[in-house]
Amino acid sequence: MFLSNLMPVKKAQKLIDSSLKNVGVEKISLEDAHRRVLAENITSELYSPPFERSAMDGYAILAEDTFGSSETNPSKLKIIDTIGAGQVSSKLVKHGEAVRIATGAPIPEGANSVVMEEYTDSKGINLEVEMSLTPGENISPMGEDLKKGDVILGNRKILRPQDLALIASAGYNSVNVYKKPKIAVITTGNELVMPRPSLSGAEIINSNHYTFKAMVESAMAIPTVVHCVDSHKLVENEFEKLIETHDALISTGGTAISKGDVVVDVTENIGKVLVHGVALRPGKPFGFGIIHEKPVFMLSGYPVAAIVQADVFVRDSLYKMQEIENEPQIIRKTASRKIPSSLGRTDYIRAKTELNMVRPLKIKGSGIIRSMVESNAYIIIEENVEGIGEGEECNVLSYDSLTV
Amino acid sequence: MFLSNLMPVKKAQKLIDSSLKNVGVEKISLEDAHRRVLAENITSELYSPPFERSAMDGYAILAEDTFGSSETNPSKLKIIDTIGAGQVSSKLVKHGEAVRIATGAPIPEGANSVVMEEYTDSKGINLEVEMSLTPGENISPMGEDLKKGDVILGNRKILRPQDLALIASAGYNSVNVYKKPKIAVITTGNELVMPRPSLSGAEIINSNHYTFKAMVESAMAIPTVVHCVDSHKLVENEFEKLIETHDALISTGGTAISKGDVVVDVTENIGKVLVHGVALRPGKPFGFGIIHEKPVFMLSGYPVAAIVQADVFVRDSLYKMQEIENEPQIIRKTASRKIPSSLGRTDYIRAKTELNMVRPLKIKGSGIIRSMVESNAYIIIEENVEGIGEGEECNVLSYDSLTV
Repeated sequence: MFLSNLMPVKKAQKLIDSSLKNVGVEKISLEDAHRRVLAENITSELYSPPFERSAMDGYAILAEDTFGSSETNPSKLKIIDTIGAGQVSSKLVKHGEAVRIATGAPIPEGANSVVMEEYTDSKGINLEVEMSLTPGENISPMGEDLKKGDVILGNRKILRPQDLALIASAGYNSVNVYKKPKIAVITTGNELVMPRPSLSGAEIINSNHYTFKAMVESAMAIPTVVHCVDSHKLVENEFEKLIETHDALISTGGTAISKGDVVVDVTENIGKVLVHGVALRPGKPFGFGIIHEKPVFMLSGYPVAAIVQADVFVRDSLYKMQEIENEPQIIRKTASRKIPSSLGRTDYIRAKTELNMVRPLKIKGSGIIRSMVESNAYIIIEENVEGIGEGEECNVLSYDSLTV
Repeated sequence: MFLSNLMPVKKAQKLIDSSLKNVGVEKISLEDAHRRVLAENITSELYSPPFERSAMDGYAILAEDTFGSSETNPSKLKIIDTIGAGQVSSKLVKHGEAVRIATGAPIPEGANSVVMEEYTDSKGINLEVEMSLTPGENISPMGEDLKKGDVILGNRKILRPQDLALIASAGYNSVNVYKKPKIAVITTGNELVMPRPSLSGAEIINSNHYTFKAMVESAMAIPTVVHCVDSHKLVENEFEKLIETHDALISTGGTAISKGDVVVDVTENIGKVLVHGVALRPGKPFGFGIIHEKPVFMLSGYPVAAIVQADVFVRDSLYKMQEIENEPQIIRKTASRKIPSSLGRTDYIRAKTELNMVRPLKIKGSGIIRSMVESNAYIIIEENVEGIGEGEECNVLSYDSLTV
């Protein structure tokens, strides 16, 4: 297999992207909406606060009664009522009168300001106000946070704690959000076994089981993980069964380019293979297809190749299936040493960032998981670039920026 | 209440920090360990790969048999066996012999290199090799990823997909992690009601219910949220009950500084109040106490004040209770306009970052949730700084950097 037969990364990304749509909308309780993706524009049903309210513990009065007052020359008022939190006064405040009021309580009719308790002195129903207030002082106007009809949050917003608070204040206890895609992960390979403290024969631990369950979770989707041996019939049965109940499949293994390989053959047989082999290193043996109108991502069995393929092709697809907009944050750093590359191939080089520098790791094997653990970013060398010189700036994508 | 009676923010943070410890360790399945915090150093039980393996589909041979070979002058070998994935050959490869081998399969004894299928031509048991190989070519050495006894991951690591893969490869299907703290959130206030499309009297929607359930989730802890009216007896009962089954309490409301207020009084009564009133704006009426040796965070009832208090005092505490190390990422940006502040008080100003600039929001009320929704960062003005001039650099903490 030669480079010229491999599909350029950007072409494969576009082709995959054009095959995807979101998996629908569901109404959920606002309780459960943290980090979900809003599937509507939210318009406030309410004013918030719903009335003029006191910003302080103190007395609701007419500001005019205090003009010129001071500690040495207090104005004298009569207390006619008390309003606690959650209460409303039926009294009308007239000149010379005051209503004791708690923070957050509705301002009684007639009053136009609140004097803080600290600036008063009271005995029984007699109140002395030791400062001069201006009308409106210590009153939060009705609707200062929200007005009925305000559009407060837009479609596709990922909901944070404060967003939930605003939606609640707008009068809603439920919201429409995009469904989380249900993703079946099928690891293939006769040699794979679950973790155990000793191995025999050709056994290899199935690390991809853990990687891709967690990768799907990190993309805010819902994983189911199964294993299947390298049998065309068994893989086909598994694919047919899982595609019915899931929104997409991700497989690992069985994607070799040099020959017919089991996973790619199965997809060709019951669906259509759109991509097989990409100009990406590591990660060349990547496949993408459609079975029963659902996307199938076929990753290499090699752990690092599979992770790179997932970061390049799968992660953004899972975001798109739930309308999450995550633009990869490419930053520029200085390469600590020369990095060779070939024209026509995109390289994702495991690297470690250090301040303004980036150091490519020396470990290169596409099976060496430790290299993904010890690195924190990819250096990306695009297909039209022949390599990076020592001290040259290059494109860096930190692993952290891949998640939303 | 005057500034001089309020505790400086850093002093309160230190006092709280010294009252906290982690809530213990639990052993969980590696399946469930994504984003959990490792509570041990992991030492590999295994070599990975556990044997010398083929990096390619091809033929395991002796490199010496191919020296000087080329397309026009191939070397001729006999195929004596075939090893598929998951299989082991019992054959010894001698000069003039070859074993067909799948990627990942163990190299048979005697062979010292693998020729890729693409550089061979086979008919029956006759194989032609059309290139010259060097010993070791296309062979991944045993233990190239992990060696038995290697310490692969350390205590307090937050586990990513690739970390789980490495732990699996090291032979483990379970790990020790720090327990997630169970946090009871108690919203107080007679006026509070759950969201509804119309309100009457003094009713206010309980937005804090949603904010703090989600805030606890965003700090990777487990929330229970209840509401309680402003009754000393009922709040005390609720606190006593919840502190038994949770690792910490967070309350909202009832923290006024100017008078005895219900939540602070209850904590003083059944425990000990260590902080009441901090030199923070917004967020002055914050309390911290200990009940039955467990921390109690008493937040303002005002939504924005409460969020700031949580970001300044609670979030890092919840991290510490599960041994998560998250250093807040203070960045420097240019202020778009003058920002006044007072000596002796720390200001957290809602702001919006735009490239190298930061623009403080004009909305200031500590009840205006919209200001937390429309901003994306705090400008922090430390207590020893009297304000920021237009065009001056200032300290900025983005909301995104608060979560791990």
